[in-house]
Amino acid sequence: MILVNENFGKLQASYLFSEIAKRVRAYQEANPQAAVIRLGIGDVTLPLAPACLEAMHRAVDELGHEATFRGYGPEQGYDFLREAIAKNDYQARGCDIQASEIFVSDGSKCDCANIQELFANEGMRIGIPDPVYPVYVDTNVMAGRTGAAVEGRYQGLVYLEGSAANGFVPAPPAGEPLDLIYLCFPNNPTGAVATREQLQAWVDYARANKALILFDAAYEAFIRDPAIPHSIYEIPGARDCAIEFRSFSKKAGFTGVRCAFTVVPQGLVAYAKDGTAVPLHQMWNRRHTTKFNGVSYPVQRAAEAVYSQDGVCETTQQVDYYLGNAKLIRAGIQALGLDCVGGDNSPYVWVNVKGDSWAFFDRLLHEAQVVTTPGAGFGKCGEGYIRISAFNDRAKVEEAMARIAKAIR
Amino acid sequence: MILVNENFGKLQASYLFSEIAKRVRAYQEANPQAAVIRLGIGDVTLPLAPACLEAMHRAVDELGHEATFRGYGPEQGYDFLREAIAKNDYQARGCDIQASEIFVSDGSKCDCANIQELFANEGMRIGIPDPVYPVYVDTNVMAGRTGAAVEGRYQGLVYLEGSAANGFVPAPPAGEPLDLIYLCFPNNPTGAVATREQLQAWVDYARANKALILFDAAYEAFIRDPAIPHSIYEIPGARDCAIEFRSFSKKAGFTGVRCAFTVVPQGLVAYAKDGTAVPLHQMWNRRHTTKFNGVSYPVQRAAEAVYSQDGVCETTQQVDYYLGNAKLIRAGIQALGLDCVGGDNSPYVWVNVKGDSWAFFDRLLHEAQVVTTPGAGFGKCGEGYIRISAFNDRAKVEEAMARIAKAIR
Repeated sequence: MILVNENFGKLQASYLFSEIAKRVRAYQEANPQAAVIRLGIGDVTLPLAPACLEAMHRAVDELGHEATFRGYGPEQGYDFLREAIAKNDYQARGCDIQASEIFVSDGSKCDCANIQELFANEGMRIGIPDPVYPVYVDTNVMAGRTGAAVEGRYQGLVYLEGSAANGFVPAPPAGEPLDLIYLCFPNNPTGAVATREQLQAWVDYARANKALILFDAAYEAFIRDPAIPHSIYEIPGARDCAIEFRSFSKKAGFTGVRCAFTVVPQGLVAYAKDGTAVPLHQMWNRRHTTKFNGVSYPVQRAAEAVYSQDGVCETTQQVDYYLGNAKLIRAGIQALGLDCVGGDNSPYVWVNVKGDSWAFFDRLLHEAQVVTTPGAGFGKCGEGYIRISAFNDRAKVEEAMARIAKAIR
Repeated sequence: MILVNENFGKLQASYLFSEIAKRVRAYQEANPQAAVIRLGIGDVTLPLAPACLEAMHRAVDELGHEATFRGYGPEQGYDFLREAIAKNDYQARGCDIQASEIFVSDGSKCDCANIQELFANEGMRIGIPDPVYPVYVDTNVMAGRTGAAVEGRYQGLVYLEGSAANGFVPAPPAGEPLDLIYLCFPNNPTGAVATREQLQAWVDYARANKALILFDAAYEAFIRDPAIPHSIYEIPGARDCAIEFRSFSKKAGFTGVRCAFTVVPQGLVAYAKDGTAVPLHQMWNRRHTTKFNGVSYPVQRAAEAVYSQDGVCETTQQVDYYLGNAKLIRAGIQALGLDCVGGDNSPYVWVNVKGDSWAFFDRLLHEAQVVTTPGAGFGKCGEGYIRISAFNDRAKVEEAMARIAKAIR
């Protein structure tokens, strides 16, 4: 008899964004005339940068000629892209990261989800922020690293609580040490950023406890404060204790194009139960080459073009545009007398709605025809908040904030 | 302390194609003047079909305009592609498969590798053909479903042996029933195809034993014999016991473009330990939406174009071209007095080399400058064979066969 992985049965409700999509669909079917504005899921809206479009067209043309056709590429990504990433995203910021340490993939969601396959299913304390991007939690549930959900939390996980009190940047906990730690800065959903000192505390903690940090930096392109690190590898000691995830989705509008990467430093280790050190770079390489076949060639050329002179200029303008939206959202929310964080170095504004977050979501959908994301979908500590995304057209953001002001006042 | 998944330590040697690449690289470095011909890894060489190129260019243009820009698509794939697949690959052949049962992905390697996450890690008898595409075995090893490797075989797996005697189409075994069964036809590596009766026997067996068949049909486009089924769903009862994997890689030269799909019928179930039936469609949907973010939009448009009138014509010509190569390879091998199977309804010819397969691989590399794939890399039953791939330029295939003839005679 074919047996299922019963851990899937522990998963709570449906995936957050599917649930939102369902409610929006239902509202639109009931109100076909309503002009709904989407500030929910963090999806870009600006057209792809001309430098990326040109690079994709050129690559597609190459596939049309025998002399320049390319079949399977290296699973880890083409050298031209790995080198551009290492040079521009790391070496230019003083991080000692080499091209061979970059693994190109089709998305940070996949990478964050897949990385847990490298680790033991038992005997580890896993620290996951709350509120948090649901993929970190759900993939550990599917792998059987948790018990059942009790009052919205899975038994066996350690929740690193974010709150207004700590600025949504949890510090390393006292007590029994963590072994695997998920961090995400600029944070999704709160938009909070971590200072150099806060990240140094986590790196020191991880090294002292032989723990591993999984650092999700998908939103690093939105950092404008020069004092805030863009990469965990800007922190001394991080090469010994951290894996980093990056994406072109938000940096260059690639949510429909699909390209991301993961950095696994040479020399980074985890341990067998008997204490033997096992290099993670080689393990991830084995996982990547066995279960993945590389990113579409024209997509890799488009990603390379992000680092060209035109590409840098065009994609920076896109990010600036969304940051301009975020500023408007912050101002609009603050004018309503509501507290918020984020939106400075992040496309997300995290709003204290002083009440039930799904109810507030429904209220904004029904009364202002604006889609947001209810904080409760990101964890227990997200209750009482909503996330507003700056990814949209300027005029629509202005319209949305006007409608929200009218509905809420 | 961060603990590794120690199951990775059970994996034997490196991934087959990485090992081949290493040996070829070493030979080329030592013999920089040698014109090596690659008939090893099954990678296409013909330029992408014009219909697909045009569709990709159009889609890239769409991404350049605000009105036609697309961000995140549905994780399961766009309806335009799912519907084209359901209609052309299934309904046109009389298979009752709906668009909603198609999950578009970036590769069959990923799908075959990821599907095992849906099943229990313990308490199942897993039947895997030998010889076989290494991914089925390796991903079950990584998940901890096997014991250690002993003399080239993992303890805990049931090997379904292929041989000249059964035409490399193993029949359902007697004795304790299997619970999870991997089948691949047209077969990689042997090129063997299964008849309707042989597939019916497997479907009947699976239904009688509440077992599940994972049917890899990545090479179905090469079937020219009208009596041979292209899909497991051509067999009555298969909807109740089978998941099917398909790919555009070999059908339309997409190895560098990346698109594939998996069919999980509604109503197909697996079981909890207590016997409760659990629908697999919903589980795979949850897995797919949690760990994957959809295929690149221009790639999905290119895949859709495979089903256009021009696309069908152009991609059929490509497959015919490779089948022409396969015919030459078969004839050349038979002229040397060696036995072989495959090559009629498949791009692979499986040659009995009457000796050690890595030694024969090295001999062809060193004496004929031709890269093949040693059968031993596909399992114990592959020892004594090599796989020759028909994916190359006609002139190169002719040259390779001439060199092989000279080296072997």
